[in-house]
Amino acid sequence: MDECLLLDAGSGGRASQRLIAQCFMRHFANPLLERMDDAALLTDISGPLAMSTDSYTVTPLFFAGGSIGSLAVHGTVNDVAMLGARPRYLSCGFILEEGLPLETLERVVADMGAAAREAGVSIVTGDTKVVPRGACDKIFINTTGIGQVFASPSPSGHNARPGDVVLVSGAMGDHGLTVMGSREGLSFLTDVASDSAPLNHMIEDIINTVGEVHVLRDPTRGGLATTLNEIAEQSQVSILLDEASVPVHEAVRNGCSFLGMDPLYLANEGKCICIVPESSAEAALEAMRRSPYGKEAARIGTVTEGKAQVALQTRIGGRRLLGMLEGAQLPRIC
Amino acid sequence: MDECLLLDAGSGGRASQRLIAQCFMRHFANPLLERMDDAALLTDISGPLAMSTDSYTVTPLFFAGGSIGSLAVHGTVNDVAMLGARPRYLSCGFILEEGLPLETLERVVADMGAAAREAGVSIVTGDTKVVPRGACDKIFINTTGIGQVFASPSPSGHNARPGDVVLVSGAMGDHGLTVMGSREGLSFLTDVASDSAPLNHMIEDIINTVGEVHVLRDPTRGGLATTLNEIAEQSQVSILLDEASVPVHEAVRNGCSFLGMDPLYLANEGKCICIVPESSAEAALEAMRRSPYGKEAARIGTVTEGKAQVALQTRIGGRRLLGMLEGAQLPRIC
Repeated sequence: MDECLLLDAGSGGRASQRLIAQCFMRHFANPLLERMDDAALLTDISGPLAMSTDSYTVTPLFFAGGSIGSLAVHGTVNDVAMLGARPRYLSCGFILEEGLPLETLERVVADMGAAAREAGVSIVTGDTKVVPRGACDKIFINTTGIGQVFASPSPSGHNARPGDVVLVSGAMGDHGLTVMGSREGLSFLTDVASDSAPLNHMIEDIINTVGEVHVLRDPTRGGLATTLNEIAEQSQVSILLDEASVPVHEAVRNGCSFLGMDPLYLANEGKCICIVPESSAEAALEAMRRSPYGKEAARIGTVTEGKAQVALQTRIGGRRLLGMLEGAQLPRIC
Repeated sequence: MDECLLLDAGSGGRASQRLIAQCFMRHFANPLLERMDDAALLTDISGPLAMSTDSYTVTPLFFAGGSIGSLAVHGTVNDVAMLGARPRYLSCGFILEEGLPLETLERVVADMGAAAREAGVSIVTGDTKVVPRGACDKIFINTTGIGQVFASPSPSGHNARPGDVVLVSGAMGDHGLTVMGSREGLSFLTDVASDSAPLNHMIEDIINTVGEVHVLRDPTRGGLATTLNEIAEQSQVSILLDEASVPVHEAVRNGCSFLGMDPLYLANEGKCICIVPESSAEAALEAMRRSPYGKEAARIGTVTEGKAQVALQTRIGGRRLLGMLEGAQLPRIC
């Protein structure tokens, strides 16, 4: 392989074929991808299906706990899983900048391959565009995932009911603060790492354990506060959050208080919000804690009747409304 | 709506919601998209499935005969259709540059909506990232499509057989030359327009008419010559192409001869190569010609035993090998 990516690699000709054979095929290897037709033929999946897409533009490309490659698999796998589906297949579209060191591309692709293997999904179809220097920033990745829905009914932001309990699978804010820290070179943020992880196996265990789950959502961009506001609006319910019970790692709490950020608005890439009837709450928490990605799962609030809003019961006993994120705390976080 | 896109619109908060409501929902409107969960729930599709992805980075964004918006729908719809599938659902991932005029975005999104309606597909899930000025060039779009395979067996580049006939659905090179012409401001190229079009209805008619189709491929990047070389390699056959019978519009022929380009290597975005047994050739041609996008369909060659290569029977009676495109004739053509 040459040292840097040339425009030719996106031409659709021989140079493209070499990149596909020498990089993508080695790390994504599976018989469906190897057919190399215009589309992948998937014979062993049937409906109902969940389908989700995300483009990843995170900078820097590598950060504590992950990279744009692992994130591009985890983010889409998790979105598919949140519908009560078993993620099966991913597509992968690269937009690459001319001159990108091939070693960088290979590290990203290797991370994608490893993340896909852990999640149990196959990358079955892809596309690569190479744009001239300056027309994009190094690497952008789109992944789109499909999975087979096994939950019935399927969880949805519309299904929160008064009396339900709000659970989270772990601590809030790790990913957002880590990316900010690596980007800005904040050396005091050494104890934080992204939580980027595939949640599909944990989700499957939760649903198999408790049966009906009303809502499953991953609090990515906009964080816990924004995602809960979306759910409150979709379901037309109030959500009361108990600040003291929301898990936040010490290092994240300290970093946020120093930087004037709020962990409830920071992105997470390996956590889910799970809203279930009170009667299922303990069983759901136990299922989360059985997963390596749910050890710090906690009960953090309740759903009540009332105006579509999120209220925070603060540590010192007060109560205030928790709004939705308005604009960007930080761009290019995923 | 403000006049230019702000970074906030990609934050996942209120500003993102406004962009989704005021732009995407208006043009893509469908009940599945409006659920706004992490993934779309598709209950009325079952396997076998075809899945394909493409990222679109074409410049300029608008050109004679189409735009990045219509292209982003046609390209993916066609790739899904080439497997003998009925395209049903698309995902859509935008990467947008801060400062993009919102009117430009709206035109692109309107083109996507119109193209999706014509093709009979729904855009059911999406994602929008906004990157800082200079981190991408205006608009990149990824679409991923899934469709239900109805052909049995499914056409594949691996299925060309000696004795088969090679058909194309129309003239070669229109898209490639048009994009080059608009980009470089070549004013003598006024009579050319992109052929960008959805081929799924025509494909369905061909398969319903003739039954088994061995190969269906759309000659996009790399053009007819490169795609035929891929098929020759996948099927381990020789393909003999009759130069005089390959349809090329007069304006494209003239433009190419002036610019030193070869229409057989230029991208097409609304044409397909169809390889069928001799006994089905006439019926397949008739089916193509019934479609508004197949009026100029022609028989252009034959499949023979022998080395995996493509030979061209030239107008003046000679014969030469037609190689695969090595690098880029032109980057960012789709």
